[in-house]
Amino acid sequence: MLNDKINQILKHEGPASFATYGTDGVHMAATWNSYIDVRGENTLLIPVGHLTITQRNIESGSEIQMILASKDVEGFQGEGAGFLLKGNAKFEDSGANFDRMKSRFKWVRAAMVFKVTEVTELA
Amino acid sequence: MLNDKINQILKHEGPASFATYGTDGVHMAATWNSYIDVRGENTLLIPVGHLTITQRNIESGSEIQMILASKDVEGFQGEGAGFLLKGNAKFEDSGANFDRMKSRFKWVRAAMVFKVTEVTELA
Repeated sequence: MLNDKINQILKHEGPASFATYGTDGVHMAATWNSYIDVRGENTLLIPVGHLTITQRNIESGSEIQMILASKDVEGFQGEGAGFLLKGNAKFEDSGANFDRMKSRFKWVRAAMVFKVTEVTELA
Repeated sequence: MLNDKINQILKHEGPASFATYGTDGVHMAATWNSYIDVRGENTLLIPVGHLTITQRNIESGSEIQMILASKDVEGFQGEGAGFLLKGNAKFEDSGANFDRMKSRFKWVRAAMVFKVTEVTELA
């Protein structure tokens, strides 16, 4: 699911933007590629500082979408690869995922655990 | 509206992701910072290759949101600045905006003209 090109993208710094949906409509937020911790085949850990609206939307049942992309990775049309990831997330403020994030980032209040269920390479 | 820091961000390559909303829910797509042409105080031109769902959503009344960010520009908390832009867009397949895009990118079928009405610096 989280293929080789996605792992290559994450080695290049850049914004990793994501979107959820809730009572106030579409909500976009972002982290940095370098902050994302890939766990196994289909899970991304994201450190949570703010993200209060993202959390509210997710806990009200919103799915999450994220775009990961880098001009420095080869895509369909030569330079530049990008992927749209869709799935569901949970916010964890204790346990192993939280501890992993907290050990890297003092400011985290939770780990966002993003289970990716669909990956599409962008043209 | 499109301040100095945003113009600095656009000088660094990276994905510029945007979201609209329509009958199929939230739709994310992206361009590259280097492809965006800033016109005046509040307008961004974006070259359109695919973007069929984005166009359909916008022409059905969706607003558009975009995140522009770079770790190489100073933000609120030291390195890394990011902005959430909201506004409305139009797709133009002729005229001056289209010609500008077409002269840079042979593959464009339209210019997306994004009028930014709200800018928020991300913490």
